[in-house]
Amino acid sequence: MNAPVNLDALEVGYDVPALPGMDEAEIQTPCLVLDLDALERNIRKMGDYAREHGMRHRVHGKMHKSVDVAKLQMDLGGACGICCQKVSEAEVFARGGIKDVLVSNQVRDPQKIDRLARMPNLGARTICCVDDVANVADLSAGAQKHGTEIECLVEIDCGAGRCGVTTTEAVVEIAKAIDAAPGLKFGGIQAYQGAMQHMDKYEDRKAKIDIAVAMVADAVDGLKAEGLECDIVGGGGTGSYYFESASGVYNELQCGSYAFMDADYGRILDENGNRIDRGEWENAFFLLTQVMSHAKEEKAICDAGLKAQSVDSGLPVIFGRDDVEYVKCSDEHGVIADPKGVLKVGEKLRLVPGHCDPTANVHDWYVGVRGGKVETIWPVSARGKAY
Amino acid sequence: MNAPVNLDALEVGYDVPALPGMDEAEIQTPCLVLDLDALERNIRKMGDYAREHGMRHRVHGKMHKSVDVAKLQMDLGGACGICCQKVSEAEVFARGGIKDVLVSNQVRDPQKIDRLARMPNLGARTICCVDDVANVADLSAGAQKHGTEIECLVEIDCGAGRCGVTTTEAVVEIAKAIDAAPGLKFGGIQAYQGAMQHMDKYEDRKAKIDIAVAMVADAVDGLKAEGLECDIVGGGGTGSYYFESASGVYNELQCGSYAFMDADYGRILDENGNRIDRGEWENAFFLLTQVMSHAKEEKAICDAGLKAQSVDSGLPVIFGRDDVEYVKCSDEHGVIADPKGVLKVGEKLRLVPGHCDPTANVHDWYVGVRGGKVETIWPVSARGKAY
Repeated sequence: MNAPVNLDALEVGYDVPALPGMDEAEIQTPCLVLDLDALERNIRKMGDYAREHGMRHRVHGKMHKSVDVAKLQMDLGGACGICCQKVSEAEVFARGGIKDVLVSNQVRDPQKIDRLARMPNLGARTICCVDDVANVADLSAGAQKHGTEIECLVEIDCGAGRCGVTTTEAVVEIAKAIDAAPGLKFGGIQAYQGAMQHMDKYEDRKAKIDIAVAMVADAVDGLKAEGLECDIVGGGGTGSYYFESASGVYNELQCGSYAFMDADYGRILDENGNRIDRGEWENAFFLLTQVMSHAKEEKAICDAGLKAQSVDSGLPVIFGRDDVEYVKCSDEHGVIADPKGVLKVGEKLRLVPGHCDPTANVHDWYVGVRGGKVETIWPVSARGKAY
Repeated sequence: MNAPVNLDALEVGYDVPALPGMDEAEIQTPCLVLDLDALERNIRKMGDYAREHGMRHRVHGKMHKSVDVAKLQMDLGGACGICCQKVSEAEVFARGGIKDVLVSNQVRDPQKIDRLARMPNLGARTICCVDDVANVADLSAGAQKHGTEIECLVEIDCGAGRCGVTTTEAVVEIAKAIDAAPGLKFGGIQAYQGAMQHMDKYEDRKAKIDIAVAMVADAVDGLKAEGLECDIVGGGGTGSYYFESASGVYNELQCGSYAFMDADYGRILDENGNRIDRGEWENAFFLLTQVMSHAKEEKAICDAGLKAQSVDSGLPVIFGRDDVEYVKCSDEHGVIADPKGVLKVGEKLRLVPGHCDPTANVHDWYVGVRGGKVETIWPVSARGKAY
């Protein structure tokens, strides 16, 4: 797991879509391409923002599932660590050298608790979320068994409608149980408002985060009254980080998609009514595809379908083109409307996928390009790590 | 690639979701589970049908991407070979020992043509589709370079609206070019009506296939008039195989989903108005998930979201339960409506995914179960082989 990649052993086409030094035109499709210049600019920009606003940035590794991208976010963007959603992902990051790892999710299965409790032995600060007091004893037993410490955040459901408790009373009850449990350390609060991130309008997102901030502030006060201080009050995403940063309550951001951007996120609007992919963030993440049939004049068929991307948040958009449109996605094919017949068989197009996270999860490699050349290839280190 | 799996080197949780001999209850989630009894019954049933109707069955390996499942389809179901959609998939099957492999798709990229032309050296009869006379010279050059033979089927777009030509004139033109090209052999016609397979009503599907059969029959006649015989007239899927079998024109079926079934296919109706997953085919393919949070009384959160399945054809259905419903899918979570609060944290549920093909493609392993025990684990051999 995460052994250094031996490029000499890899053959283009059979093993990998490209190798460093190749021209971009030679990359085998469909595959994920990262515009390294744009990626680095996005990472620096968010890093600067967090620093200037006195926030730590715990980048969301679930988005890219890549140790290499996480390290770039720490090196260029000053990230304090990463968060991710699964123990198996966390293991990949810890083994890859990330020293501060939050599983921003519940860990309930006995086998998973056991693996989580071993993670500090990989040299990583290990943090997870709790939303049920019954979970505390199991986590404590796991940590004691391995002689390790697990930090626990109480998760508040501040609007996402998934995991998490909804009252300060419940937060305090769970926090006190954590604080009293051997092998566990009370670390603070997890409060990510996920349901609001993709709302188009800035004002709508702000209204939702105002509710979240009020809940979190109340919980922080309630904990303080019991003598429990929050080292971490974490949350925030690409559609909301400025709200959490201005809240006076949150101290850690957990942004993911800003680094890559995708078509669905790109459509949301900033404070001035501009799409966030027209200035705030750059598209750095593309699904490269090739036209492989054009037997009908008005439509081209490309080689990127459902097995090369997730369409849960809409179809991909063809980057930089308004004369052709990706209109239908089947398992291995994309249908591109080409009313003027401008596309040629063999032509390559950059698609901006609808949703970056599950799209990254179907690929084994990122191909990093700069100036028309392949500069690097990175494994999608935690691809498929769902358990 | 496809080295025999050394189970001794694999650890549950870290490497695989389960190992043979384990109780089903111990399987790590989310993961793919195959009910081996149901799978074998489906495979035998379709095999019997094809044999009784004088059809060859070239099973669609793109659905499961598994050498092991393909071999079961040959052993128990009498399949004559497999088809798949990508050269990289075909390589996996050929290296895995499948001796008759059709890439039921166009191969246009020079590097892919080169790899296809090497495939006969792996011991596999190698077949691909053509829908453009310009492709013939490239395929011929590839085959000549490697001293091999590629069989070529002319693809007819008989309603799917993707690749393929739409006139007998075009079919004959391409077939003649193939027949004249060194290194190539004209093999017949590929005519899969993909767009109709998921239409609910039997009569609607029949109406579409009647049009397809007329096109194919005309093309076969046109080819015969030029002295070109079709060894293969291939097509047919789980929603239509009885039509192609009765057509008098098709001689090879290419069914995939019948072996696994999924929620979307299951909803289509047979001749008598019954869902095809209530008698015709059994659900053999499940996404096993676990409840990992139940902080709100009326909803349970499970651990299978968008990274464990594709929702392009709808949300998964919870198998054998009508008291709870999977109602929302985010990246790593599923929200299950549990109005009576019957689910417990840690409880496992079998989901029937909306669409089996792209769901299989996000997992690394199939866990084969029988009688409550894990009997085998099979790699999803061609997972991610998109290029």
